[in-house]
This record gives sequence, C-alpha cells and structure tokens, in this order.
Amino acid sequence: MKNFLARLFGKKNDMNIDITIIGTGNMGRALATRSIAAGKSLQVLARSTETAATFAAELGTGIASGNTAEVPAGRIVVLALPFDAAKEYVAAQGSALDSKILVDITNPVDFATFDSLTTPAGSSAAEEISALTSATVVKAFNTTFAGPLTSGSADGKPLDVFVAGEESARSEVAAFVIAAGMRPLEVGGLHHARELEGFQLLVMAMQVNPALPDFNWGTALTIVG
Amino acid sequence: MKNFLARLFGKKNDMNIDITIIGTGNMGRALATRSIAAGKSLQVLARSTETAATFAAELGTGIASGNTAEVPAGRIVVLALPFDAAKEYVAAQGSALDSKILVDITNPVDFATFDSLTTPAGSSAAEEISALTSATVVKAFNTTFAGPLTSGSADGKPLDVFVAGEESARSEVAAFVIAAGMRPLEVGGLHHARELEGFQLLVMAMQVNPALPDFNWGTALTIVG
Repeated sequence: MKNFLARLFGKKNDMNIDITIIGTGNMGRALATRSIAAGKSLQVLARSTETAATFAAELGTGIASGNTAEVPAGRIVVLALPFDAAKEYVAAQGSALDSKILVDITNPVDFATFDSLTTPAGSSAAEEISALTSATVVKAFNTTFAGPLTSGSADGKPLDVFVAGEESARSEVAAFVIAAGMRPLEVGGLHHARELEGFQLLVMAMQVNPALPDFNWGTALTIVG
Repeated sequence: MKNFLARLFGKKNDMNIDITIIGTGNMGRALATRSIAAGKSLQVLARSTETAATFAAELGTGIASGNTAEVPAGRIVVLALPFDAAKEYVAAQGSALDSKILVDITNPVDFATFDSLTTPAGSSAAEEISALTSATVVKAFNTTFAGPLTSGSADGKPLDVFVAGEESARSEVAAFVIAAGMRPLEVGGLHHARELEGFQLLVMAMQVNPALPDFNWGTALTIVG
C-alpha cells in the first residue's frame, strides 16, 4: 500500500523542489495550500510515507512526498510541527539541513494554562531550534492560525505574516509570503521571535477565553492603517 | 498668569473626577479626547500649573487642571508620560496614589536602536512601576499610537486596546475603553505587560523602517476575524 500510494501520488525528490513541509496537520495543510497558490514546487514529509503520500494526493497533483528520514529536497523547509517535535526532527537530521532555510512556526505555549510559555524569559522556540542546527532558522507564521492562512487573507485583506531572522534568509521567506498572496512584515533578527511568540501566547489565550466567544481560532493579528 | 488661567479654565479638584491624566503630550491629548468622548469628568495634571490649565482649555470646557504635586482626583490615573518620568512621578507620590488605578501606557524602548527594551527579560515597565507603589497598576494603551487613539478607530473599526492587570482593576479600565468607543482585549495579569511591551517594540520599529514607508505612527495593532 505504501509503495502503491507513493508510486501513484509521490514524486522523486531529485526534482527541483522549492519548499518542503514537514508535518501533515492543519498548519502543514494551510502552508501547503499557500505554497501551491504561490506556484511553488512542493514536497511534504511525514513520519509515515503513506500518510505523506495521502496528504500529498489530497493537496493536488504533482506534490512530492516522503518520510522524515529523508533529506528534505526544498530550499525552504517548513517545520509544521509542534515545538517539541520540531526540535526532535531538527536534532535528528543533523548536518543534512545545513544548507536549508528552516521556517519555525511553533508557539511554545503551556497549553494546560495558556498563561505562559515553556521557553525561559530571554529566549524563544526559534532560538532553541537554531541552537540545534547549522541551518538558518527563520521565524514566521506563528501568528497565523490555519484557517486564515489557508485562504491567505483576513477581513478581506492579505494576511500579515511576521518574519524574524537573519536578513538574507528572512528576505527569501518574505518573498515566498508575497508570492503566496500575503504581506510579510519583517521584524529583524531571530531574537525577535521572542516578541512574536510572546504576543501569540496572548492571542491564543483569547481563543479559549469564554469572554471572547467570537474568537475561535479564526482571528488574525494584523496591523492596519 | 498662572492663577488667571487656573481661575479661567481650571476647576477645583474636590469635584467628582473620573479620570486624571498626567502629562500633556500627544498620548495625554488623545486619551483626554477619548475620555471626553466617553462622557467622563476629567482632570489633567502637568509639572507646570499653567501648562496644565492651557492644555485643559484646549481640550474643552469643564476640564479640571493642576500640577503634579497635587494628589490626583480621578479614580483612574493615566500616566501619559515616558517610562522614566512615569517611574519618577509614581515614586514621588508615595502613598497618595494608594487607592488609585494607575494606567501605565509606556513602552520602555531603546529609542536609539528600536531593537531592544530597556527593561530586563522577564520583567516589564508596568511591573517596575507597580513595584514602586501600592496603587493597582493596569497596562493599557501601549499599543495604540496617538493618532488612531484620538479618533478611537482604525480602518473604520473601534480601536483594539489590550489591557493587562489584576482582574477588578482591569475590568474598570476595560469599561472605560468601551465607554470611549473602543474594544478592550483583556489579556490577563500584569505580567502579561511583558508581551504587550515586547510586541510593541516590533511595531514601533516598523514605524521607523524605511522599507515600510506607509508605516508612520498611524498604524494600529488589531485582531480581525
């Protein structure tokens, strides 16, 4: 079955891939949708080859797939994983990721309370991931929920995507954001992931706050005016 | 001249005052404008009695004024001052503020670089101010620039005002925000001022970023959807 699906839907990874997405959850799906809208060649990787192949087939035709033991083919590799899984993946890959831009979308939130981060003050998930790899880590998409990200818009306007990281890599991610129909807002070096993750803690807590019944994982953090 | 202006425009502070605004800058003016729109009785205090009286007269009729040596009359006292001046004021007032709700609107940004805060990681301007007083400190209006705050709207919608602090005091400030035609978004205890101040560092840096020529202190941080 794995091989059948891989033959049917998968593509070899030696083709020219722009973007690899690791993970098949809601965020991976939303980012895949935006990547396809941007006209990017796409690879999706999951722990299970079959899961990845099925996911690729659901996304459309011509989507490469494979499992996370493979070296990702894309120049940009999006870690569409929870924080702990992202760290585990990056650590396991070792030097295989060295030439990549790794996009960290995670929010290291204590989901039991929605009141604190699991990273210490003066750090961030992005910096912790960066410490595990020689790849260039860029923080992006941590303030965009899957729903708005799927459409790339919020309130009828291109979605704002905050991007932090080393300038050259950040610019590549920003170019992708533009190609995908959204607005990149570059906020500086990777240490500014601290502020992006910190504020998103507040925004996520709003989604589970009974006093804000209209906030239900469909909002978007936006700068207007 | 001082006495003449005080007689002409000032009011005694023994009247029932809802809100005292400390400071006569752009933020003080915007908050005064919103207070008046909310139908609140207002007092403005400045270092100079004359400056305060002139400011009060510019705002309209029936605005009380005085200098910062006086005990503020309002239940809610807005520190419309830079961070260092706010700390100095609160420290100098001592126990005179004990029964008040102090609204801290400051952003402890390193204005030389717009790349870091002047407060240490794991702290905030609001918490530093709170440590100087027995008054209840609420963080609010640090993400609203004076322009949008003057109108109370951004992009044709009520302006979002993020509010952090102890629940009862926070609710009083939120009620004022609603009365003033804006949308309060309560984000929890005062320690969440960290995230509000952190993110606003990024937003302020955008205003001076040549790559974002449309961002010129007129934007508003908003949650849509």
